[in-house]
Amino acid sequence: MIKVWASMDENPSGGRKYKLKMESYVNFFKRTRQFVKAGFVQFEPRFGDPEYNRRAAFSLMEKSTSRLLVLPELFTTGYLFVSKKEVEEMAEEIPRGITTRLLSEFACDKNCHVVGGLAERAGDKYFNSSVIVGPGGYIATYRKAHLFNEEKLFFSPGDLPFEVYDIGEARVGMLICFDWFFPESARALALKGADIIAHCANLVLPHCPAAMITRCLENRVFAVTADRVGCDDRGKKKLEFIGLSQIVDPSGRVLVSAPEDKPMLGEFEIDPGAARNKTLLEYNNLFGDRRPEFYGIICESNQDKEFENVWK
Amino acid sequence: MIKVWASMDENPSGGRKYKLKMESYVNFFKRTRQFVKAGFVQFEPRFGDPEYNRRAAFSLMEKSTSRLLVLPELFTTGYLFVSKKEVEEMAEEIPRGITTRLLSEFACDKNCHVVGGLAERAGDKYFNSSVIVGPGGYIATYRKAHLFNEEKLFFSPGDLPFEVYDIGEARVGMLICFDWFFPESARALALKGADIIAHCANLVLPHCPAAMITRCLENRVFAVTADRVGCDDRGKKKLEFIGLSQIVDPSGRVLVSAPEDKPMLGEFEIDPGAARNKTLLEYNNLFGDRRPEFYGIICESNQDKEFENVWK
Repeated sequence: MIKVWASMDENPSGGRKYKLKMESYVNFFKRTRQFVKAGFVQFEPRFGDPEYNRRAAFSLMEKSTSRLLVLPELFTTGYLFVSKKEVEEMAEEIPRGITTRLLSEFACDKNCHVVGGLAERAGDKYFNSSVIVGPGGYIATYRKAHLFNEEKLFFSPGDLPFEVYDIGEARVGMLICFDWFFPESARALALKGADIIAHCANLVLPHCPAAMITRCLENRVFAVTADRVGCDDRGKKKLEFIGLSQIVDPSGRVLVSAPEDKPMLGEFEIDPGAARNKTLLEYNNLFGDRRPEFYGIICESNQDKEFENVWK
Repeated sequence: MIKVWASMDENPSGGRKYKLKMESYVNFFKRTRQFVKAGFVQFEPRFGDPEYNRRAAFSLMEKSTSRLLVLPELFTTGYLFVSKKEVEEMAEEIPRGITTRLLSEFACDKNCHVVGGLAERAGDKYFNSSVIVGPGGYIATYRKAHLFNEEKLFFSPGDLPFEVYDIGEARVGMLICFDWFFPESARALALKGADIIAHCANLVLPHCPAAMITRCLENRVFAVTADRVGCDDRGKKKLEFIGLSQIVDPSGRVLVSAPEDKPMLGEFEIDPGAARNKTLLEYNNLFGDRRPEFYGIICESNQDKEFENVWK
């Protein structure tokens, strides 16, 4: 049953009053009920072997029937860079680079959309980025806003806002790995209308799969987390990745989950429209119930603040 | 070892620069390393029997050796009001009402602080509130910002900002139950310097205990969630509560957890200073790595927005 949420006017306790803006929110939340298969590719990249890595990823992608496919972070290069020079040698321009072009070709052939993570060269800067491509080619780039540990030695922090892209069947927002730790990332995407968060990851901390359930619940969105497996062993430095790629729905259910240590193509038919219904209960609307008048400090600039740490 | 976090100046990737403000942040994050016992009281209130409920709560409180004790939401009245008249009859003024006075006496006798939830009458308005009291008496009130479902029929939404209170051993912020669902609540408290979130709850949804782990992790704070057990059976309406009160540390560890269905006094020695160290990894500082320049939409007013729901 289609039902406009009881406005605060009907709320005897008083409070804020929302006005209907036909031109924005009615279209924004229009009913879809169109089921769409979404998927992730979890695989084991070899550090510094883009050709092998693309082949490995594409061989799983070929088996997919998803309309939206998500690949891991830095899926072409592997993760554990130990020098800036390595990044400079392996980073690609977007959309001119070979990876974006191959992904676009795939999306065109398969009539689908793909989100994948790669090292981006942009002038004299390098970003840990993801691209979204579709049947019509390249759509957009996201540059990781919250860099993880030594990534800061090699990449610039993202300089692009969190944006949402309408791919027809759904609105998609991109996050990369450690962005999960900062609740503002997924919140900003949800408030901008994302139905699905395409989350390219190379997870090393154990908490992300559980935290993404909270992210989906608190925003009533889907999330497709594509992680990698295996280990980047660079001699003195070594990192193991936790796998556990997953698709989570707006009620916090894990729809499909990958193992810790094996490649997997994971897919699930989802209804992106379910993310547009922000009703939680008879009197609760997830967005309407927010109290931005009390959230001000969250948007205050860091510029003049020093974050001292007491001990390590 | 005391260490000031590597400023972004040392970050070869460039980016933002933080200035040291001696007067604010150095004091703010000063080292404590003072262990403090914090606790929750989980019990089974009887609806509409404040005397019994206070006795039941106090009998567990008496056994406590905590310096900070947290009681459930609406611990004196029970939860499931079915008419405004019931609220009007049972709500108390703060701090003049009997419950706040008894809690203050207890805190004075035991030389501790207590946070507890109760129905507040303030002029012609009613709030789902919590109070914090200490050895010196009443300190402050928090009024639930995010009301849950039919609470909206009986209570006004909170009209006070999220605030943090320095009780000597720690800085304490208050949340009530459903506030957990909105990541901005805990985030605002953490940014205002909370070490411990005193979370009075009457949980019915199953997700809160897991989500509070994410809240602690993403903010590097402690949380003491005090829930109730049992059921409010009001004839036509009935609600069961999930218990599972818990104390969680800034790394997401559950330090103590209560059963689903039994009263319990849960206590744990914690080091509130651990919440002041926002270092995550060598190059990551939880607050310094935030990107408020991309979070703007989170603080935009709801005023002109209509949140339509597509279906229920």
